[in-house]
Amino acid sequence: MVNETQHTCSASSSSKSDCGSSSGSESSKDSSRCSTPVLDADRHERLREKMRRRQDSGDKWFSLEFFPPRTANAAVNLISRFDRMGAGGPLFIDVTWHPAGDPGSDKETSSMIIANTAVNYCGLETILHMTCCNQTKDDITGHLQKAKRLGLKNIMALRGDPVGEEWEEEVEGFNYAVDLVKHIRSEFDDYFDICVAGYPKGHPEAENYEADLRHLKEKVFAGADFIITQLFFRSETFLKFMKDCQAIGITCPIIPGIFPIQGYHSLRQLVKLSKLEVPQEIKDVIEPIKDNDAAIRNYGVELAVSMCRELLDSGMVHGLHFYTLNREVATTEVLKRLGIWKEDPRRPLPWAVSAHPKRRVEDVRPIFWASRPKSYIYRTQEWDDFPNGRWGNSSSPAFGELKDYYLFYLKSKSPREELLKMWGEELTSEESVFEVFTCYITGEPNKNGHKVTCMPWNDDPLATETNLLKEQLEKVNRRGILTINSQPNINGKPSTDPIVGWGPSGGYVFQKAYLEFFTSSEIVTALLKVLKKYELRVNYHIVNVKGQNITNAPDLQPNAVTWGIFPGREIIQPTVVDPVSFLSWKDEAFALWIEQWAKLYEEESPSRMIIQYIHDNYYLVNLVDNDFPLENCLWQVVDDTFELLN
Amino acid sequence: MVNETQHTCSASSSSKSDCGSSSGSESSKDSSRCSTPVLDADRHERLREKMRRRQDSGDKWFSLEFFPPRTANAAVNLISRFDRMGAGGPLFIDVTWHPAGDPGSDKETSSMIIANTAVNYCGLETILHMTCCNQTKDDITGHLQKAKRLGLKNIMALRGDPVGEEWEEEVEGFNYAVDLVKHIRSEFDDYFDICVAGYPKGHPEAENYEADLRHLKEKVFAGADFIITQLFFRSETFLKFMKDCQAIGITCPIIPGIFPIQGYHSLRQLVKLSKLEVPQEIKDVIEPIKDNDAAIRNYGVELAVSMCRELLDSGMVHGLHFYTLNREVATTEVLKRLGIWKEDPRRPLPWAVSAHPKRRVEDVRPIFWASRPKSYIYRTQEWDDFPNGRWGNSSSPAFGELKDYYLFYLKSKSPREELLKMWGEELTSEESVFEVFTCYITGEPNKNGHKVTCMPWNDDPLATETNLLKEQLEKVNRRGILTINSQPNINGKPSTDPIVGWGPSGGYVFQKAYLEFFTSSEIVTALLKVLKKYELRVNYHIVNVKGQNITNAPDLQPNAVTWGIFPGREIIQPTVVDPVSFLSWKDEAFALWIEQWAKLYEEESPSRMIIQYIHDNYYLVNLVDNDFPLENCLWQVVDDTFELLN
Repeated sequence: MVNETQHTCSASSSSKSDCGSSSGSESSKDSSRCSTPVLDADRHERLREKMRRRQDSGDKWFSLEFFPPRTANAAVNLISRFDRMGAGGPLFIDVTWHPAGDPGSDKETSSMIIANTAVNYCGLETILHMTCCNQTKDDITGHLQKAKRLGLKNIMALRGDPVGEEWEEEVEGFNYAVDLVKHIRSEFDDYFDICVAGYPKGHPEAENYEADLRHLKEKVFAGADFIITQLFFRSETFLKFMKDCQAIGITCPIIPGIFPIQGYHSLRQLVKLSKLEVPQEIKDVIEPIKDNDAAIRNYGVELAVSMCRELLDSGMVHGLHFYTLNREVATTEVLKRLGIWKEDPRRPLPWAVSAHPKRRVEDVRPIFWASRPKSYIYRTQEWDDFPNGRWGNSSSPAFGELKDYYLFYLKSKSPREELLKMWGEELTSEESVFEVFTCYITGEPNKNGHKVTCMPWNDDPLATETNLLKEQLEKVNRRGILTINSQPNINGKPSTDPIVGWGPSGGYVFQKAYLEFFTSSEIVTALLKVLKKYELRVNYHIVNVKGQNITNAPDLQPNAVTWGIFPGREIIQPTVVDPVSFLSWKDEAFALWIEQWAKLYEEESPSRMIIQYIHDNYYLVNLVDNDFPLENCLWQVVDDTFELLN
Repeated sequence: MVNETQHTCSASSSSKSDCGSSSGSESSKDSSRCSTPVLDADRHERLREKMRRRQDSGDKWFSLEFFPPRTANAAVNLISRFDRMGAGGPLFIDVTWHPAGDPGSDKETSSMIIANTAVNYCGLETILHMTCCNQTKDDITGHLQKAKRLGLKNIMALRGDPVGEEWEEEVEGFNYAVDLVKHIRSEFDDYFDICVAGYPKGHPEAENYEADLRHLKEKVFAGADFIITQLFFRSETFLKFMKDCQAIGITCPIIPGIFPIQGYHSLRQLVKLSKLEVPQEIKDVIEPIKDNDAAIRNYGVELAVSMCRELLDSGMVHGLHFYTLNREVATTEVLKRLGIWKEDPRRPLPWAVSAHPKRRVEDVRPIFWASRPKSYIYRTQEWDDFPNGRWGNSSSPAFGELKDYYLFYLKSKSPREELLKMWGEELTSEESVFEVFTCYITGEPNKNGHKVTCMPWNDDPLATETNLLKEQLEKVNRRGILTINSQPNINGKPSTDPIVGWGPSGGYVFQKAYLEFFTSSEIVTALLKVLKKYELRVNYHIVNVKGQNITNAPDLQPNAVTWGIFPGREIIQPTVVDPVSFLSWKDEAFALWIEQWAKLYEEESPSRMIIQYIHDNYYLVNLVDNDFPLENCLWQVVDDTFELLN
């Protein structure tokens, strides 16, 4: 009779909650406390499950391969690239293993650390490559343990290239990728998702194509979850390979490796390494234009797009893997033309979620690190509380120390010369500092004609949301209220709003207005007089570098300033102003004056002394307007303060 | 320079979070998860601290004394009285110890169980009296352990009356209240707040007034936290006593015991027991009117009001303790005339918070038990999760069984005859059941002229909030949508709103519209067709007594349907629709048809068979409209369903 069921489950009237025990998210099962709402099923799935779900739903996807950079500066650039290319929605990225580059070390350029950064700091599902030849079991186990500790969940198991000219088997050693696959499964059970390489033309060292297919089958049967192929130049090559694999019983996903030709030399080098032959029809096009980089790249994009279309149209291919060579333009272009680059303006939460398994369920953060999410992750990496999905009150966990300014992902992306152009080769007064803040807000060039595109507290141009407040921000920065963070109040905009929306559709998002700035003690004195009038409407925290702290926060409780209401879910409150963590943030915020700005100048120079003066004497202030349904009163507070001073 | 500080704390820039560790609520210190916001400082304080805070703030208070009733029915009535008198805001109530009534037992009339009910089910701060004479140490320790287990935090330590005519000391036994005080402190350390009795005229058995004062001092120095006095008839008596206490070094609070004269016989009996003498001026007034109860009560109220005014005006008295004799009218009248009866329309949460120490911080509950809060507390009493302050997802803790219908606080307050008058001496069809529901909603008398003031699912008249929906509810009940729970949608009303407000002032409260009802399978079939149109806007759960369950809830997650946003706090979401606990509620909701309604009729009678039919064949449905800022669409859903059926 009742048959329009969507979810149906049956529980006899005597047995309780049978239904619930077979469902619900991980986090809600683990705890009887208010569970972290699952905003995004992706956050709880393993890579192989995500792949399967995409295949089932017919939703095409792509992935991106990168290699570890040679220098720390290049690493900083690569991470920016992860952030930008991550915006297109890759299912995963992978990082190759550079045996010559100390790949398992803690160096900022090692394979391990780059993959760690991608997972933890950029929130990308990441596969770490690992080769096994010429390494002891203990070395390999050590690398795998470290990868697990860092939150990596996926390994591409490879043999690697032998050291000498000739390949010699080692007795008891790891001679083939299959040995590594077996080792991972025996030592780490089902913890890792394992990927292996497939060779559409057969491995160059295999006896023949059929023998190579058998090797591939061995790797899959030893425990590999999916296959990524070597590059190829014709879609038929891949489709034949795929059918041959299926014919011998390989049923796992096989992902074609796509190499958009980006230049004459990179193609030649890759071909040499892979021992592949470039088809004559491609050579015929490329040779005549080999000195015209743009032309070659255009051709490469065309070629890749048409080959990818053929693959996708075959119905056999659900995802495409791109060899990016750490470059952005060609691959992005191919993906956009294929229509699978999906820059989704909707965010699962207002901030980027880390992909570390234990941080995937994190859903509350203090607002202070809004523009420095990597610093927040770094400073909270030792917290073991994230399995509960909540950040919570910071009074228990300690924030990591700030001595690690050398850490490449906390450094500015811009080189010193550029920073000096933006922030002033020479500062003459506090007002010249106000000018820098004002230019950053307005986007206008400074008096030397340079735009200020970043600040010590903000390594990126102004957020779209902050643009809503531009006019007011400009006015107050000019007068010495040096803003570093702000958000407008929002009273129930749809969660799909392109600027302020986040979370699943059908919901409503809210914000309390927030303003955070540095300012002089003179202004603080006036401000405190003004704030008395506003009583509990405005919560404030005011602190100087020595930690003298003034607040009206009740019991030092956190104040939720961003929250969302969604169909069929609990309330989500991803951003809070927390009085306790504010004191940790204060250390960082003040230190940035010195570490990023003052140190650009000679010791004892007037410029440096001006910044040092501000660091020593200014206060860091944050204000929250609790009356979110009314017009934001914080501008009035600031106006009243200036008026009092006049 | 900065001196307008409110909270100030200083932390050197090298030490982190020093500030936080010395503050914050209990719950936020215990856990790094999103802490339960402290809505009400009271909830975390011990009684003696509450008393001190009220004294410091100059906020006068009162407390109420009750004795355990003789019968189970009287117990049910007394509990209703606790709920009503609790609304006036007593600082605490106390329950006397009846040595003859098996006071420590599990009987529904025992002192222990009545105090347990007051704390856990009525949410009242409660003092349990306990006497010590003629009892072994082990008995007393056992009683105290049980009290602690039940969540009682306060003990009034008394000697009690000797069994024989003459008082004889037992060697090694408990001879005086001071022995009990010492025992509590030595066995339970500082767990209990301890109250002792003071005698403004001296204890009748004491050698003299001075000796009795010395005994009192001993009790205080042994660890008592405050004193409640025996009744007295003149304010001078108390004020002199208080000064005498202070003169010998008793500094703890001394609370005058007020006895509003309510009748000639009760006065005579009390005087006999307490061995007090009634002043001649009172006797002179009372004797002539001794047969006029109303006149005596009026006089008693006048007398109590004027004596209380004198006490409060003296500046030495901050709180008044009332000997209610389990009666309501006189005491309430005195309190109202004194202006200290404070019926605060503002609630700390939408439901009454239990005063059990571990449940004080509870801040989320499923909506289903909204009208049966005592049942919810009963069925969740074994959960040990409340220290975290959250109810959370119900998939882990089991709900207690429902076999305990005999439990006096789950029974209807109305006797069988009254229920029959309301719900029908004889039912002729399902429609006559619809009629009962409709009369309950409208408040109109039924065809026999009786108003329906309660239902099996609702032991009280319709809530004010539900009145907002009256018209629509009437319409649908008439047609067989038998509503048992509902709330309108609310999009940000002030937290001080007299009807829907809750929580501290300055906040905003929100609700999603909710409707819960029983209905026939025919209507359910049509309803499900209609619901398809609404997609995710409306979440539904539909279940029959056998547990066949139909829902579109994503991943069986809870849906927050009441939440509040407050200045300087995290979001609070006190009510959720939880798919898993719904199946436990279902058992209770269906069982109430039989236990409370069907069983009013003879077995095999047509009336009983009609209720049994509904029990066996109807569905229990709940609907949530997720789009709270728009007009409630649930009435449209129901209209569409009826239209489809026509």
